Amino acid sequence: MTSIYWYGNEFVPEEEVRISPNDRGYYFGDGIYEVFRVYGGRLFEAEAHYERLRLSAEGLKLALPWGVDGLRRAVEELIERNALSEGTVYLQITRGAAPRNHLFPAGADPVALAYTREVARPVQAMETGISVISLADIRWLHCNYKTLNLLANVLAKQEASERGAADAILHRDGIVTESSASNVAIVKDGVLLTHPADNLILHGVTRAVALHLARAAEISVQERSFTLDELYDADEAFVTGTTVEITPIVSVDGRAVGGGAPGPVTRRLQRDFASAIQLR
Amino acid sequence: MTSIYWYGNEFVPEEEVRISPNDRGYYFGDGIYEVFRVYGGRLFEAEAHYERLRLSAEGLKLALPWGVDGLRRAVEELIERNALSEGTVYLQITRGAAPRNHLFPAGADPVALAYTREVARPVQAMETGISVISLADIRWLHCNYKTLNLLANVLAKQEASERGAADAILHRDGIVTESSASNVAIVKDGVLLTHPADNLILHGVTRAVALHLARAAEISVQERSFTLDELYDADEAFVTGTTVEITPIVSVDGRAVGGGAPGPVTRRLQRDFASAIQLR
Repeated sequence: MTSIYWYGNEFVPEEEVRISPNDRGYYFGDGIYEVFRVYGGRLFEAEAHYERLRLSAEGLKLALPWGVDGLRRAVEELIERNALSEGTVYLQITRGAAPRNHLFPAGADPVALAYTREVARPVQAMETGISVISLADIRWLHCNYKTLNLLANVLAKQEASERGAADAILHRDGIVTESSASNVAIVKDGVLLTHPADNLILHGVTRAVALHLARAAEISVQERSFTLDELYDADEAFVTGTTVEITPIVSVDGRAVGGGAPGPVTRRLQRDFASAIQLR
Repeated sequence: MTSIYWYGNEFVPEEEVRISPNDRGYYFGDGIYEVFRVYGGRLFEAEAHYERLRLSAEGLKLALPWGVDGLRRAVEELIERNALSEGTVYLQITRGAAPRNHLFPAGADPVALAYTREVARPVQAMETGISVISLADIRWLHCNYKTLNLLANVLAKQEASERGAADAILHRDGIVTESSASNVAIVKDGVLLTHPADNLILHGVTRAVALHLARAAEISVQERSFTLDELYDADEAFVTGTTVEITPIVSVDGRAVGGGAPGPVTRRLQRDFASAIQLR
């Protein structure tokens, strides 16, 4: 079955989607996006994604011609048309097509593109945990906006892979921010630590869910940054993200973390997360 | 006359160029570019642009399937087909089209796109000078690569315009780096100062030409960074860039610089630049 895209405010087969070379997304990366998770044919934490999209648009002064209701209808019809049960919806919106000029174009309409993809839960990685490396965080200072300027993330992920790791944990002068495409948390002496939701990290939807579940389980939570040394010495560490869910980190830069196996707090949060996605 | 593009290794009318939604340029900004200047139908400093393109590709680990000779032939034929006399050639190369995944795609071919545009020399701005504002430089730490991740530049230029200025001068904690799309230099006590060509600025082709002309004119040149305060107190200030050439700055943040008029060193370099583009 051919994949159906939402593009130009219409539902069209993938092969009919053709982007203008004047689309600012193509030459400036001038746009924003979200990746929604679908479990059992239903969106998970959809409102949090729409709210973040709105904040990203605001940050980029990108006036959206669609309200959340309009986007919601499009995304839900897309899921239906593609008969998606387990997977993701990718939605991006660029500032529109106009001759190349740094200044915002007058009269150009934002261009939205959305499609679905079947994606299984990362069962193996969630069970055994992943090995990561650390890399300097060289990104810009608005990592809280979810934009199409993802080169630093791409290069970090690629370097991790070339060095045999599943992902790269980024740090600014030794302060851990997040990974190439997910948030990072550690547990030390029973306290869950993760970088505050400021301009240096993406405000992950799964991060927020994990913190909510931790608090509900009466696990002590501190949103404060931690160092690479604290990560090395952590009792537990894990990443959170829309597709990685809650995945344990068992090794950083070749050193075992938390004895090299997923720890009890991580396991508890994974179980509670599994319940959360079933009990909606 | 319809504009002819170089795309997919062919020369095609603009309206036939349609980008794949799977092009990594569109969803990651995963690509590089150059803007070449054409004077009298001939490329100016073409080899410096090709060399920088090569360095950008190397920085992004983007293996170019075209050698400089192949790109040169394409760019020159493009100029001829569009009968371009005064203007620019825009050339961008993305990592290719593949389903979205941060990891470099196996087997995807880079996608090149090039077109020409008629552009007059900025005679008025070069004569009277421009007013600029200063803004924090929030970009990533590889500004030496000329990539399609230009959101920070776009936002800076737009903010300058909304505040009635021609451009934004960027600074990191008070150290001036460059402008939203050009390099910046000042003259103080007869010495020309400009930020070193490191990872914090684009290594401008026109910057290099201006430094060469300055040295040839026995003007003292120091490639060292200067502060925003030094810019305010400068005897002269100017920006350099492929389309702005050498344009005086006469005001920064509402304060007159160098008495509010272009100074003698700037004028001398403008004259020598005008000779350089005629005498090739």
